[in-house]
Amino acid sequence: MNQKIAEYVDIINNALKNIEYPQQPDSLYAPIRYELALGGKRIRPVLMLMACELFGGDINQAINPAIGLEMFHNFTLLHDDVMDKSDLRRGKPTVHKMWDENHAILSGDAMQIISTQLMTQVPPRFMPAVIETFLKTALEICEGQQFDMEFESRKDVTTDEYINMIRLKTAVLLGCALKIGAIIAGAPVAQANSLYHFGENLGLAFQLQDDYLDVYGDPIIFGKNIGGDIINEKKTFMLIEATRLAEGKDADTLKQFLGNNDVDPREKVTAVTNVYNNLGIDKLCQEKAEAYYNAALACMDEILVPEDRKLPLLALAKSLLNRDH
Amino acid sequence: MNQKIAEYVDIINNALKNIEYPQQPDSLYAPIRYELALGGKRIRPVLMLMACELFGGDINQAINPAIGLEMFHNFTLLHDDVMDKSDLRRGKPTVHKMWDENHAILSGDAMQIISTQLMTQVPPRFMPAVIETFLKTALEICEGQQFDMEFESRKDVTTDEYINMIRLKTAVLLGCALKIGAIIAGAPVAQANSLYHFGENLGLAFQLQDDYLDVYGDPIIFGKNIGGDIINEKKTFMLIEATRLAEGKDADTLKQFLGNNDVDPREKVTAVTNVYNNLGIDKLCQEKAEAYYNAALACMDEILVPEDRKLPLLALAKSLLNRDH
Repeated sequence: MNQKIAEYVDIINNALKNIEYPQQPDSLYAPIRYELALGGKRIRPVLMLMACELFGGDINQAINPAIGLEMFHNFTLLHDDVMDKSDLRRGKPTVHKMWDENHAILSGDAMQIISTQLMTQVPPRFMPAVIETFLKTALEICEGQQFDMEFESRKDVTTDEYINMIRLKTAVLLGCALKIGAIIAGAPVAQANSLYHFGENLGLAFQLQDDYLDVYGDPIIFGKNIGGDIINEKKTFMLIEATRLAEGKDADTLKQFLGNNDVDPREKVTAVTNVYNNLGIDKLCQEKAEAYYNAALACMDEILVPEDRKLPLLALAKSLLNRDH
Repeated sequence: MNQKIAEYVDIINNALKNIEYPQQPDSLYAPIRYELALGGKRIRPVLMLMACELFGGDINQAINPAIGLEMFHNFTLLHDDVMDKSDLRRGKPTVHKMWDENHAILSGDAMQIISTQLMTQVPPRFMPAVIETFLKTALEICEGQQFDMEFESRKDVTTDEYINMIRLKTAVLLGCALKIGAIIAGAPVAQANSLYHFGENLGLAFQLQDDYLDVYGDPIIFGKNIGGDIINEKKTFMLIEATRLAEGKDADTLKQFLGNNDVDPREKVTAVTNVYNNLGIDKLCQEKAEAYYNAALACMDEILVPEDRKLPLLALAKSLLNRDH
C-alpha cells in the first residue's frame, strides 16, 4: 500500500481508538474495544475517505461515518463468529471465547447502534442519504449471511445464487463505503452510484480472488491455511462450477470425496484441486474475477473527475486483487 | 382500555401486518413476522401516537416510527430470549426454539436495522431529532440488559443500581416513545423532554408494580406464575430491601432459603413472602411505585396543552399501574 493509504489507515485507527464509550457497564463496552483492537486492513473506511477526496470533499467530514462503517463491519464479524462457532479471529480468541456468547450478542447489538450513531455525524444536509444508503446495505449484509448459512445445507446452489450471496455479504459494503464518501463530498447522485458500482464489482472480484487463493494461494502470503473451503465443502464458484462440469473420472473423484467425513483432509484438498486443474476451474475463476474487475474499471470511467485524481483508488483496487505477489 | 386506545392498537397492528419485507431469504424474514405476530399490548407505539395527538400533531406521520419502535422492542425481546435461554414468549415457542439460535441472532439483527429504517420515515425536518432520541435510547436498553445479566451473579446490588437498571432496560423506551411522538407534532424541545420524563417515571412505577405483582398479584389477572422472581432470586427492589432490612429470624429465613437449590420452590416463595410481609416490603414497594407515578404526574403538569387533551394519556398511565383489579 502506498503512503497515502497508510496515512488514511492511521487516521482511522486513531479515530477508532478515540471513541469515547460510557464508563458503565464496562462488560458491554470492553468486548467492543477488544474487537476493534484486533486490527484489520480498514479497507472500508479508507475507501470512504478516498471517495470523499476523489470528489474534492473534506475528509474530516467523512471520518465519523468511516469509523461507523468499520464498527458495523466488525459487528458483523462478531455476530458471524458466534453463528459460525469460530474460535479465532485474526489469530486471537473471538469475543464469545474471551467472554461468552451473551456478551458477544449484546455487545454486537450495541456496536450496531453505535455504528448508526456515527453514521449520523455528518453535515445535516447529507444525513438522510447517508443513513438510507447505510441501512439498505446493512440489511443486505444480513441477507447475505442468511444465504451463506442456508447454502451450507443445500446441494443445488447455482453460480448465480453464489454470486448474489457474495454480492450481499461482501461487495455491497465496499460500494456503500464509496458511495457515502461521494455523498459527503457533494457528488451528484449518478456519480455516487457509479462509484457504488465500482465498489460492488471490485468486491465481487475480490471475493472470487479470495476463493481462488484459498486453493491456489501461497499460505504465507495469503495468511490462511490453504484448502479450507475444500475441506468444508464451501459452495464457492469453483466447487459449484466443478460439480457442474465434471464428467467421468473427475465426477467420480468429487463423488468419492464430497460428503465423506472419513477421508484425510489433505488427500481431499489434493484430489479436488486436481479436478479443478483438469477442468480449468482455476482459469475460469480468475477470468470471472477479472471480468468483475474490468466492470469496476468501466464504472470508474464514468466518474467525471481529472484522471490523476482516480489513481489512488485504482492503485488500491489493483493491490486488493494482487495479494499473492 | 378505552376505545381510543383500542383504535390506536388496531392502527399499529395493521401497520405491522402491512410491512413489506423482501421475498428472499424467507428464513431471515419469517422469524420477524412470527415474533411480531405473537402480539402484545403495543403500549410503546400507542404512547407515541398519543403523544403526537397530545400536541396536536398528525398521527399518520407517527405511524412508521411507532411500528419502528415496536419492531425494536420486539428485537430486544428476541435477543433477550436467546440470552436468557427462554423457551416461551407469550405462551408460544421463542424464535430460537421454532428455528434455532442463529436464526434468532440474525433475524434480530435485521429487525434492529428495519426498526431504524422505519424511524427515518418521518418528515425530514424531524428526522435528526427522532433518530438521535431513538439511538440514544436503543443503546441505553443494551446497557440495561447488560446490568440485568451482571446482577444475576452479584450479591451486592444496591437499590439505586436496581432502579438504574430498570430505568435503562424498561423506562427509557416509554420516555423515548412519547418524546418522538412529541417531536413529530412539532412540540418545543422542553415540552418533549417533560413528556419523556413523564414516560420514564411511569416506566419505573410500572416495573416496580410488576415486581410487586410477581409476588402479590392474582395469577389469573397477572398472567404469570406468582413468585417467579423469588424462586430465581432476582435482585428486585423488594429482595434487595428485604435483605438490607432483615434482622433476627427474618435474616435467618433469607439465609436459609436464598442460594439454596435443595428447597421446595413453593416453600421458598411462602417463606420469602412472609419475610416481605414482616418487614412491610409490600408497602415499601407500592410507595416507591407511587412516588414515581406522582413524579410522572408532576411532569405532565409541565405540559402546556388544555387539560382535557391530557386525559387519554393519564387514563392509560393509570390503567398500566392498576393491572390487578
